[in-house]
Amino acid sequence: MQLKTVYESVKEELLEVENRLKLLVESERTSFPELRQMLANLLPGGKVIRPALTLLSGKLFNHNLSPLLPMAIAAELLHIATLVHDDAVDKSSVRRHRPTIYKLWGEEKAVLLGDFLFAKAGELAATTGSIRVVTLFAQTLQTISRGELRQSFDAFKLKQSREDYLYRVSCKTASLFSLATQSGAILSQASEPQIKALDEYAHNLGIAFQIVDDILDFVGTAEEMGKPVGSDLTQGTLTLPPMLLLERYPEDNPVKRLFQDRSRKEEIKQAIELVRSSSILQECYDVASDYSLKACRSLDLLPDSSSRRALVALADFVIQRRR
Amino acid sequence: MQLKTVYESVKEELLEVENRLKLLVESERTSFPELRQMLANLLPGGKVIRPALTLLSGKLFNHNLSPLLPMAIAAELLHIATLVHDDAVDKSSVRRHRPTIYKLWGEEKAVLLGDFLFAKAGELAATTGSIRVVTLFAQTLQTISRGELRQSFDAFKLKQSREDYLYRVSCKTASLFSLATQSGAILSQASEPQIKALDEYAHNLGIAFQIVDDILDFVGTAEEMGKPVGSDLTQGTLTLPPMLLLERYPEDNPVKRLFQDRSRKEEIKQAIELVRSSSILQECYDVASDYSLKACRSLDLLPDSSSRRALVALADFVIQRRR
Repeated sequence: MQLKTVYESVKEELLEVENRLKLLVESERTSFPELRQMLANLLPGGKVIRPALTLLSGKLFNHNLSPLLPMAIAAELLHIATLVHDDAVDKSSVRRHRPTIYKLWGEEKAVLLGDFLFAKAGELAATTGSIRVVTLFAQTLQTISRGELRQSFDAFKLKQSREDYLYRVSCKTASLFSLATQSGAILSQASEPQIKALDEYAHNLGIAFQIVDDILDFVGTAEEMGKPVGSDLTQGTLTLPPMLLLERYPEDNPVKRLFQDRSRKEEIKQAIELVRSSSILQECYDVASDYSLKACRSLDLLPDSSSRRALVALADFVIQRRR
Repeated sequence: MQLKTVYESVKEELLEVENRLKLLVESERTSFPELRQMLANLLPGGKVIRPALTLLSGKLFNHNLSPLLPMAIAAELLHIATLVHDDAVDKSSVRRHRPTIYKLWGEEKAVLLGDFLFAKAGELAATTGSIRVVTLFAQTLQTISRGELRQSFDAFKLKQSREDYLYRVSCKTASLFSLATQSGAILSQASEPQIKALDEYAHNLGIAFQIVDDILDFVGTAEEMGKPVGSDLTQGTLTLPPMLLLERYPEDNPVKRLFQDRSRKEEIKQAIELVRSSSILQECYDVASDYSLKACRSLDLLPDSSSRRALVALADFVIQRRR
């Protein structure tokens, strides 16, 4: 299923999100043209999953677009800000088929732009008027940073458990998916059990999404992904596919050789080939599918509607996607 | 006057700020020891001017410590987070007589820790329960980032006006001083004219503070400052002293030579000597004093109290300080 089809019931709202993001860029035209240029380089693009989650979650209930739209934008900007910082610290040159802010403007400006975007997202979250949502927003950025820090401290470490991996994935990706759904529900007067159901949905969806992301870093092409493949191993990040590779071949293993001597870049190619030609990929997809199914089960509690069906379709898309 | 004397009327509250900051560090002991270690490295230290401003502003009115204390901590953490990012992007090794987070843990972890601190500060601001304060908090981080970006884009540019300098200083430093005083006043039911008076006080105080900071980068010793001197010129930042130097000697000038060829590091020492031996320093101090006086005049509207006297004393301290 195409993402466009999944988003059918919120397509007008997503268009409005896009328009407002463009306005946000244009508002810098006269006051700070260089900032406008940097912002323009970030938009449009991406799968806008996070704003879609906020809008779909809100539309399950008694929703009001006037707080929902800024929150949807806040979720996307928070995501973009973390990407800008990720690219700066990883020294990544390409993302979404385009040169990164880091590549075009350097590290200093990328870090500062990320800070600006965090704050802009926070301001938008505050326009919802809900202290609960703002608190969740701030806690989510802490959780993301904690996950990224954990990943940084764990780089090139061979002894890692699946729990370590899942913890990082929960922090880095699933927490923001949860912010997106929960804020949509909170702003639409959902009940506490309903908010909790959407939290669980997003948590499991986020894990499934990230596992597939980590698979695609092995099997995707740079063309499909819009960025180089094998980037996780280059950074020393042990994701699920190489973790299973280490379990399967504990003695002779390209990942082990790379982590013991990170100058041996040629091992990355070997690891990719080994993963591609083994049943490890299927095993990873099975894990991701389990999380996706679990996500859908959390939705049982919610009223049937086009939004709920879209959330189910999204859980399906997340597994099928090729980019 | 010593800062200790200035803070006399809020010394217990500042002790509580310090204690809570320590608890915040300790709370990471078991869950993430590496994060605890990074946080511990940041505290204690500094002049804690921002929390003092929040507390003194609050105590001018009908204050309640239960939102005031977390806001005071939020203001300090926001400040610390910006320093962590500044040091990372400037590759600074020493601050407050100690190695920086950048120096000890590298750029990646410094950027991520800064993000974590922004979010922690935001969460604390949200515990005040005031959407107005949270909005101001988020807008302030945007303003700071905008100022830092402006500074980065203006690096090594010779053609800059005093207005350019004052704009950057307002964004980088004065905006956070204003957040500190305004939030204290808002949380203590001050009237709009009173909030505005404290905004103006903080704006002018912040400019005075930053001008003196920029002077001390020329006349201070590394021993007094706890960091190397001449760091602004090293980064290509045109502050008030070298700006006046360029006005006075437009033809033959070490700043001009450095900005035209940034490899000529020896020009920094020459610029420092030239500034020290000229009347430029006095001129800069006169500008700072004017802002400090202007700050005090804004306080006329407020009821006389130990807090108001402390704010006046602080405006005096900011000019006299040697570090």
